[in-house]
Amino acid sequence: MKLKTPVLLAGLAMMTVSPAYAGSEIETLINMLHENGSVSDEQYERLMAELNQNQTQAAAEKAEVDEKLAEATKPSDVEVSTNGGLKIQTRDGKFATKIGGRVQADAAAYGGDPKMGDGTEIRRARLYLQGTMYYDWGFKLQYDFVDDGASGIKDAYLSYNGFDNLELKAGNFKDPFSLQEQTSSKFVTFTERALPSAFSAGRHIGMMASTAHQHWTLAAGLFADTVSAEGGQDDEGWGAGTRATWAPVNNKSEVVHLGLGLNYRETGGSNQTRLRQQPETHIAGVNIVDTATIDAVSDFYKVGAEIATVQGPFSAQAEYITTSVKRDMGNNLDFDGWYAQAGYFLTGESRNYSKGKFGSITPKSNVGEGGIGAWELALRYSTVDLSDADIDGGEADSMTLGLNWYPTPTLRFSANYVNVLDVEGGTYDNDEPRVFQVRSQWAF
Amino acid sequence: MKLKTPVLLAGLAMMTVSPAYAGSEIETLINMLHENGSVSDEQYERLMAELNQNQTQAAAEKAEVDEKLAEATKPSDVEVSTNGGLKIQTRDGKFATKIGGRVQADAAAYGGDPKMGDGTEIRRARLYLQGTMYYDWGFKLQYDFVDDGASGIKDAYLSYNGFDNLELKAGNFKDPFSLQEQTSSKFVTFTERALPSAFSAGRHIGMMASTAHQHWTLAAGLFADTVSAEGGQDDEGWGAGTRATWAPVNNKSEVVHLGLGLNYRETGGSNQTRLRQQPETHIAGVNIVDTATIDAVSDFYKVGAEIATVQGPFSAQAEYITTSVKRDMGNNLDFDGWYAQAGYFLTGESRNYSKGKFGSITPKSNVGEGGIGAWELALRYSTVDLSDADIDGGEADSMTLGLNWYPTPTLRFSANYVNVLDVEGGTYDNDEPRVFQVRSQWAF
Amino acid sequence: MKLKTPVLLAGLAMMTVSPAYAGSEIETLINMLHENGSVSDEQYERLMAELNQNQTQAAAEKAEVDEKLAEATKPSDVEVSTNGGLKIQTRDGKFATKIGGRVQADAAAYGGDPKMGDGTEIRRARLYLQGTMYYDWGFKLQYDFVDDGASGIKDAYLSYNGFDNLELKAGNFKDPFSLQEQTSSKFVTFTERALPSAFSAGRHIGMMASTAHQHWTLAAGLFADTVSAEGGQDDEGWGAGTRATWAPVNNKSEVVHLGLGLNYRETGGSNQTRLRQQPETHIAGVNIVDTATIDAVSDFYKVGAEIATVQGPFSAQAEYITTSVKRDMGNNLDFDGWYAQAGYFLTGESRNYSKGKFGSITPKSNVGEGGIGAWELALRYSTVDLSDADIDGGEADSMTLGLNWYPTPTLRFSANYVNVLDVEGGTYDNDEPRVFQVRSQWAF
Repeated sequence: MKLKTPVLLAGLAMMTVSPAYAGSEIETLINMLHENGSVSDEQYERLMAELNQNQTQAAAEKAEVDEKLAEATKPSDVEVSTNGGLKIQTRDGKFATKIGGRVQADAAAYGGDPKMGDGTEIRRARLYLQGTMYYDWGFKLQYDFVDDGASGIKDAYLSYNGFDNLELKAGNFKDPFSLQEQTSSKFVTFTERALPSAFSAGRHIGMMASTAHQHWTLAAGLFADTVSAEGGQDDEGWGAGTRATWAPVNNKSEVVHLGLGLNYRETGGSNQTRLRQQPETHIAGVNIVDTATIDAVSDFYKVGAEIATVQGPFSAQAEYITTSVKRDMGNNLDFDGWYAQAGYFLTGESRNYSKGKFGSITPKSNVGEGGIGAWELALRYSTVDLSDADIDGGEADSMTLGLNWYPTPTLRFSANYVNVLDVEGGTYDNDEPRVFQVRSQWAF
Repeated sequence: MKLKTPVLLAGLAMMTVSPAYAGSEIETLINMLHENGSVSDEQYERLMAELNQNQTQAAAEKAEVDEKLAEATKPSDVEVSTNGGLKIQTRDGKFATKIGGRVQADAAAYGGDPKMGDGTEIRRARLYLQGTMYYDWGFKLQYDFVDDGASGIKDAYLSYNGFDNLELKAGNFKDPFSLQEQTSSKFVTFTERALPSAFSAGRHIGMMASTAHQHWTLAAGLFADTVSAEGGQDDEGWGAGTRATWAPVNNKSEVVHLGLGLNYRETGGSNQTRLRQQPETHIAGVNIVDTATIDAVSDFYKVGAEIATVQGPFSAQAEYITTSVKRDMGNNLDFDGWYAQAGYFLTGESRNYSKGKFGSITPKSNVGEGGIGAWELALRYSTVDLSDADIDGGEADSMTLGLNWYPTPTLRFSANYVNVLDVEGGTYDNDEPRVFQVRSQWAF
Repeated sequence: MKLKTPVLLAGLAMMTVSPAYAGSEIETLINMLHENGSVSDEQYERLMAELNQNQTQAAAEKAEVDEKLAEATKPSDVEVSTNGGLKIQTRDGKFATKIGGRVQADAAAYGGDPKMGDGTEIRRARLYLQGTMYYDWGFKLQYDFVDDGASGIKDAYLSYNGFDNLELKAGNFKDPFSLQEQTSSKFVTFTERALPSAFSAGRHIGMMASTAHQHWTLAAGLFADTVSAEGGQDDEGWGAGTRATWAPVNNKSEVVHLGLGLNYRETGGSNQTRLRQQPETHIAGVNIVDTATIDAVSDFYKVGAEIATVQGPFSAQAEYITTSVKRDMGNNLDFDGWYAQAGYFLTGESRNYSKGKFGSITPKSNVGEGGIGAWELALRYSTVDLSDADIDGGEADSMTLGLNWYPTPTLRFSANYVNVLDVEGGTYDNDEPRVFQVRSQWAF
């Protein structure tokens, strides 16, 4: 709406919004008294002039108040929030920064053979700085203080999000492989990942392109060596990886997920690889299956197939992974493993699925706000076979029972009982260790 | 107060708060003119209708302004503050996060024997993230960058404060033992703790319950091994500890403190322990008393008695600690030590005592704001005896003179002169080293 | 302006600012009607009393609204901002805190001899906490996660800025020496500094006084050993350094810089030194020139001469550095080196010069805001000679071509091609390696 004259504007402002001109009855009265002859022409003109001047002034004052009110009630340009960590962002989306972390404090008691030492550890103690710069650029630096030097660098990357639903990343981050590896350690169902994480693709310095949609994701990248790889006269290793996921059903509490991953790697100057696995525990550090160093390895590749579902409080997932190692001398080697697990939230929550992996649990009610948090029971069978040809790494399978309590979205207490059903071959042939472990975790 | 009709409401609003209706005299005038016959009945009705309409509109506009004003002057939900570090908290107490740190830069020059190399070091360089989640839950992660890997993890815990004046903690933190150990390195009177800190209980991964009142505190916990303990086939060590303090006097500038600590520890699979101590310095790293590794140790316990007082600018504290080592072979061993110290603030400040330990110094005037900060002189005698039976660790006693300058609550400069009066026995029998060391510290 | 009576004040407020009194025409009308006899004396008095009361009330209400408005529109005491990192400061300048970091992810491919392994690395992954306390005190703690333990501590200092244009610093920070060393790794033109950085003075624990003006700077300090120096029975090394710069021209896009640095160092108990240099790359870790450990060294000093200019998009800089090593046995040794480089911003930006060193690049337009960022081409020749007397460390010279893209002020992508023209003497005599390396960097 545009108005022709300031006079008209002032008048309209007074008619419609000015409290000062709420008293239009005075104008009416003056007109009437003038008509009735109670007020002379001269007096009338003086009155109307004064009235007019006052109305103009009142409108200006009202406009000033309105302006100040608008300024005062305008949202701030920078938003600050905390949920334990902190988040600061500009309202226009140009910049954002987030500081957060996680601490997992674990204790384990062991039974059976092999002998493993009871103990405790800080499993992870991480801080991260993550954010957005100039709308389209993202960054992250995450460090784990339980590690030494560069090996503690987890995510350390730069990303570009200026293309429609396509993210480009450069730096150090996880290869796109395996549902349980993509899912953060904060959110995996058991305290340790299943036995086939012997075939984990890990983190490397590299570049990746990825896209994530409601019903599918696709990621592919080129990767060099790990962040802790030392230089020298030999070339470092390198690899390539891709992962595709399809979620024909993906609602808030109902998910069907299928995934396929492929990961190729040349060993570089070392010409070696090694696969090994602890019995779904980390404190004792004993690998019940272990190929030891395999020499004369030029390259290897891994294939992983994933399936998962969420049906309200019930969830299940399974993966099969195989690793084929190509040797310059001797037979090629094939190792594989799989796991299947199911979980159920006694308190009715659902696992949170997004972008081809599982995320945080939000309890229906929080401890500290009168609630009891979320309670989850879970069972897993997992197996891995690291024996082939002349390599006798051993085969193991285990059954794990887990109880998770999430008092709030940022907290988790877990108790796991791992029963290794059998080890066949390798150093610990016929051993059947048992593990009881607990964890307290805060993360945000 | 409830009103029957909107009309009445509008009228009342105008009477009492509406500036627009400040002009009730117009209504009076119209009534008078109507009574006087200057305004006809018809005119009167028109005027009153217009008046009424304007009053209603004015009241609505006033209410709108009031609402916006209320919104604009309401305190924000999130409070942000900084004193060097930063603190962000929600006003309702649901969440809080705090980032802070400390840097202590030291230099030392040595005289006498044994020869110790003059030098400098960053004694501590720490950052922490600490806060509150969902009202009742606390967390902390503090890392010291002068250490390697996991051994740099200091506090890394989760706490629950939902019970009345009872805190439950799980993770890595200090055993409850010894006044000088409980008092932060930021706030101890001298640059290094007294010789009996050879008997420090240290930090372990564990669980603790504690309660703190105006006149007493009590803490008890179960502890596993240190955060840097490696796994393996042997069980880690474990222990238990408790500490009680009583402060019959506890005012702002007058304190009487008594404390008693008990700390028990099994050595686990290592079956070893070692006690040693530098001469109240850290840079050269020479232990003037040292039991070396004692083998065949099944367990040991420590008892500590504490006494302290604050009388205005004067403060004093003393502790006696004994350690009894039980061996599977050979005699049991008893070691002990004690110290007594006094300090005086030339500028009149008092040491800050709370929850069974000493806290920060707040100068009466700050450098940077026209003041001179707080100045403190202090003297300490301390002794430790690490010789018993076949163990000739040596005995040492020393006198330390200290000067502290706190330009602001976040800053401290200290100069200490340590005169080791005598070493008896051990590697450095009859040596009498002297230490002059200075520190600059920022901490918040 | 002071007013004598509340009545007068109220009247004035109404005249000038009160919207409620915008209607002064009512008073005029009443007076007229009274004069005209339409209103009786009694009525007139009643009306005027009512008018007066209403005016007073309206003024009070207006004052209340004004006060609330003033409160609501007042700037907050604490300012929060983010550009990826975060900054929180009190508006009065009493406190400030800043959290930021940098990640540099590099990849390199090598050709020629000696054989160097292609690979990648996170070159730097740093976080820092920096700020102001009580107006006059500054602090900084910066850690590089690619290093182990204490050696990752970069800046860790306290500063005092209470004197006019004089800064005092204590803690760990860079010696004042060499333009390319003073310029942050975020802002040097090439991915690695030139060959004479073999003579870098590095960071030490020490104290420094410095002053910085528009046309000159001066810094001088006393330094002990590095932060990672271990204690022991030997004294640590110590040194002293000073640097003066003169910028007869220093405008936004036109700079002429001259500098002179002097750095002296005693070796302390080690009695050793070593100089070496990689071929302007870091991943492979191969030193093409290397004196190996030189024994019986009591002390050495370095002299550096600097010249630099900025002429709009063009910039150039050159340095000559010589190191004289004094030995207890054998001849003294003289090593030296120099480089000269030139750069040109295709997009018209200028290098940012301040306080005797170069700073950040601000593109004329940012990627993410419709721009293309800043693009810079640069060329460098550099040479270093580490052979003298019985020490055959070798001499090397190289030519480097660089391309930098700064999409935003916080981002940088660089590609460098280093052609080592010749190595004479030393282990790699006659070798001529070639290096192609790229970097992605975020920093704020």
